[in-house]
Amino acid sequence: MRIKIVIAGPRGRMGQEAVKMVLDEPDFQLVGCIDRKDKEVQVPFLAEKGIPVYRDAEECFYAQEVDVLIDLTVAESSYDYVMMALRKQIRCVVGTTGFSNEQLQTMKATAKENSTGCIIAPNFALGAILMMHFSKIAAKFFPDIEIIEKHHDQKIDAPSGTAIKTAEMIKNVRNSKIQGHPDEVETMQGARGASDDGIRIHSLRLPGLVAHQEVIFGGEGQTLTIKHDSMNRKSFMEGIKLSVQQVMNLKEYVYGLENVLDLA
Amino acid sequence: MRIKIVIAGPRGRMGQEAVKMVLDEPDFQLVGCIDRKDKEVQVPFLAEKGIPVYRDAEECFYAQEVDVLIDLTVAESSYDYVMMALRKQIRCVVGTTGFSNEQLQTMKATAKENSTGCIIAPNFALGAILMMHFSKIAAKFFPDIEIIEKHHDQKIDAPSGTAIKTAEMIKNVRNSKIQGHPDEVETMQGARGASDDGIRIHSLRLPGLVAHQEVIFGGEGQTLTIKHDSMNRKSFMEGIKLSVQQVMNLKEYVYGLENVLDLA
Amino acid sequence: MRIKIVIAGPRGRMGQEAVKMVLDEPDFQLVGCIDRKDKEVQVPFLAEKGIPVYRDAEECFYAQEVDVLIDLTVAESSYDYVMMALRKQIRCVVGTTGFSNEQLQTMKATAKENSTGCIIAPNFALGAILMMHFSKIAAKFFPDIEIIEKHHDQKIDAPSGTAIKTAEMIKNVRNSKIQGHPDEVETMQGARGASDDGIRIHSLRLPGLVAHQEVIFGGEGQTLTIKHDSMNRKSFMEGIKLSVQQVMNLKEYVYGLENVLDLA
Amino acid sequence: MRIKIVIAGPRGRMGQEAVKMVLDEPDFQLVGCIDRKDKEVQVPFLAEKGIPVYRDAEECFYAQEVDVLIDLTVAESSYDYVMMALRKQIRCVVGTTGFSNEQLQTMKATAKENSTGCIIAPNFALGAILMMHFSKIAAKFFPDIEIIEKHHDQKIDAPSGTAIKTAEMIKNVRNSKIQGHPDEVETMQGARGASDDGIRIHSLRLPGLVAHQEVIFGGEGQTLTIKHDSMNRKSFMEGIKLSVQQVMNLKEYVYGLENVLDLA
Repeated sequence: MRIKIVIAGPRGRMGQEAVKMVLDEPDFQLVGCIDRKDKEVQVPFLAEKGIPVYRDAEECFYAQEVDVLIDLTVAESSYDYVMMALRKQIRCVVGTTGFSNEQLQTMKATAKENSTGCIIAPNFALGAILMMHFSKIAAKFFPDIEIIEKHHDQKIDAPSGTAIKTAEMIKNVRNSKIQGHPDEVETMQGARGASDDGIRIHSLRLPGLVAHQEVIFGGEGQTLTIKHDSMNRKSFMEGIKLSVQQVMNLKEYVYGLENVLDLA
Repeated sequence: MRIKIVIAGPRGRMGQEAVKMVLDEPDFQLVGCIDRKDKEVQVPFLAEKGIPVYRDAEECFYAQEVDVLIDLTVAESSYDYVMMALRKQIRCVVGTTGFSNEQLQTMKATAKENSTGCIIAPNFALGAILMMHFSKIAAKFFPDIEIIEKHHDQKIDAPSGTAIKTAEMIKNVRNSKIQGHPDEVETMQGARGASDDGIRIHSLRLPGLVAHQEVIFGGEGQTLTIKHDSMNRKSFMEGIKLSVQQVMNLKEYVYGLENVLDLA
Repeated sequence: MRIKIVIAGPRGRMGQEAVKMVLDEPDFQLVGCIDRKDKEVQVPFLAEKGIPVYRDAEECFYAQEVDVLIDLTVAESSYDYVMMALRKQIRCVVGTTGFSNEQLQTMKATAKENSTGCIIAPNFALGAILMMHFSKIAAKFFPDIEIIEKHHDQKIDAPSGTAIKTAEMIKNVRNSKIQGHPDEVETMQGARGASDDGIRIHSLRLPGLVAHQEVIFGGEGQTLTIKHDSMNRKSFMEGIKLSVQQVMNLKEYVYGLENVLDLA
Repeated sequence: MRIKIVIAGPRGRMGQEAVKMVLDEPDFQLVGCIDRKDKEVQVPFLAEKGIPVYRDAEECFYAQEVDVLIDLTVAESSYDYVMMALRKQIRCVVGTTGFSNEQLQTMKATAKENSTGCIIAPNFALGAILMMHFSKIAAKFFPDIEIIEKHHDQKIDAPSGTAIKTAEMIKNVRNSKIQGHPDEVETMQGARGASDDGIRIHSLRLPGLVAHQEVIFGGEGQTLTIKHDSMNRKSFMEGIKLSVQQVMNLKEYVYGLENVLDLA
């Protein structure tokens, strides 16, 4: 018995990869897509495969028997789709970011009322999730930490969101600490990178890079390094796949991919 | 109140580092050493510091109030020291390898009878322990794995013990899998490394290397790498220090440093 | 005055990238393409831009004033195109492999007779060319060498062509040497990798990898590493661009990108 | 016929390693040392081997036939020793830093007058010399560059001298360039590192690190990395050894190890 899936947002960059992933996975069946496009144009690769595309979520859930909704749209529409799905006891896997706290709380309550699984994950990159989880553990034993994140030179902001999140998670388990020699001197400003509670963060930007991060832990006579290299959007698909499998056995709302994985 | 420590084997390479570590650690107090040397020579750096050296463990435990015995000798003498210590309710931290299963079982029972903590750890390198622990978790999600271990060119055997142990731990959580392309061809023998249940292991030997290992996990569009670099024997001291702290709260026998660490 | 370029093989994977590169480069002008397709179909992205596509090279060279032919086809057709171009004193930049020695000699002679530049390069990846060049120099000083090459798990052969080529180049400057400890033992077959004249080669294959190679040189107390990471076919374009610029000042045949670069 | 060597400064950290290296090298013969110690104490390991130690250079050069003086002292004494040696046509290999320009010019002139080789090298780490040399070449083709240098957390200044020197060398061959996205924003100050003419430099400081540097070059779809890892002072010995061999064939003054190596 294959898991019957609807994808909302099939034309987006993540959506296109998700469509491919669901079509390729033997245990999954793509029964439809939701695409709120103004004019009723066909999405070519979906039409070819005979996958119906609905402009309206209600209509979709009425026409099809659905096990899981994968929502990869934006917060505005996503909230409506998810609320509608949960009330019909259709499980949700949601990659959308930008929900308000109130929206998150309402979705949580609705999932519970309907005993229906709902996974909301701002980041589906399994490798990045593991990197952050391992870093949190390692920081208990090695409090001297440097983060290097490397991205293509089209990225505007430094440090990256993942680097900031990693430092945030580490700070929860590590006592505040000033690193380096107490008399340390920067003869060129910025050489020692940014400091978040003493943790040093270095952002590299070069053509030819994609999205990379390493977290280096130093102890007497040894270093431990945890590194994630992401080459393309396909890296998110493994996380979505795992979420679909996990949500089938869930009866409630879970926030964050790390909380549905067996990380012991 | 400082923890009163006796070190057995203070002249060995690990022992010398352990003496330094205990003397440097403000919460620790080195109350004596056990050194089974035939002739009664003084160990110079211990004599200087006024640390008494006993040829006989019994005599040592009689003369001194001891909280923890750190044993860094060989299996033959270690077993006697540990048994004697446990019966006197002196906690033990043991880095010796080569015990028989029977010896291990007897020490376990004796620790229990005397409600006394005893940590036996074949490897005190905290970073290596974490590398193996993280690898075991990552392998659940990324079953395609390559291990690279790098050592100085004075090392005789390949692969290293840590690489073999890592593969062993991974095999416990990963289904057997043949990696690479099904039609893969080695045009030069050995290029694809050794295979342990499909996991590939590559051993590099060069002057200038010390002891390094990285475990690389591959998934669609991403890789995750966990790397440990060990520069010298000091890297073991953090593990011994942690074990001394943990054994103070233990009432029984534990095998393996990973089992006394908070790895959640 | 822009350089007037014709591309042979615009629909191939390299050809498509080359078309984009030439269109993007302000100093280059794409005056036409040669595409030996049986049916006279339009190549969509070329038609859009108004670039004429010729089935016949002769016709193309007759219709257009051409400074440089970039040939990215196969040896069979490439030889004819290049010979025709050289006789018309059109410079050639050729990425085709598989020419016979006789063909290479004839092209060389023809380039000379016509005082026309012709660069034949089996590899346009500038970073890989530099990696090999630097390795050849480093091997003079550090004769202990390990090569690690990493590719996606769809690659059939191990080691990669670049790894074999790198070892080949190193052997020209390094005395034959058996590396590692003289009593070295492989407890698992293949652990020490393949051996080419003592140089060790290790091939890793994982999903998520693209095309990577590092050459590690070991000496007393130090290692030197030269690493190339290739993410996609765009990495070849810089080499083609440089070749076009260099060929404008050449009056003869040169084999290998390394021989037109200023590597001093 | 072994090369007869005198070492000035045998008790320093570099000097001790140099003594060992010369004693171990079959083609070298250590005929004496110069050690300006106030009291006439014996240097234990030299006395054991029967190597005479002279407080006075003049006396040493009078008593012994010397091919090469290796000077590892400080600028003050070094200048006198080198001048004395050159006038006696004893070749010099000098690792001292801190000479004035005037001193350097006088040594150069004296070497020439006496047709005697003299190599003055502020850095004997062969791997670091190669890293800088290769970086200078690579920068011609890849002008987007990030330097990461990693040292133990006892180091006071950031960036390291080698990182500053590397950037200096690169600037000689690369046009000034602002790297990264033009609208780049640092949301945490220092994240993008120090900037030297646009080249970004990042300094990491952790216990467990020794002395490491990597220079990363980015181009479309590829990166090239040149990395040097130095584990201990032994890494300088290969450079001293090479200098001794080269100085035997020199008739003049050369500044910088890179200028006596065959780097083509």
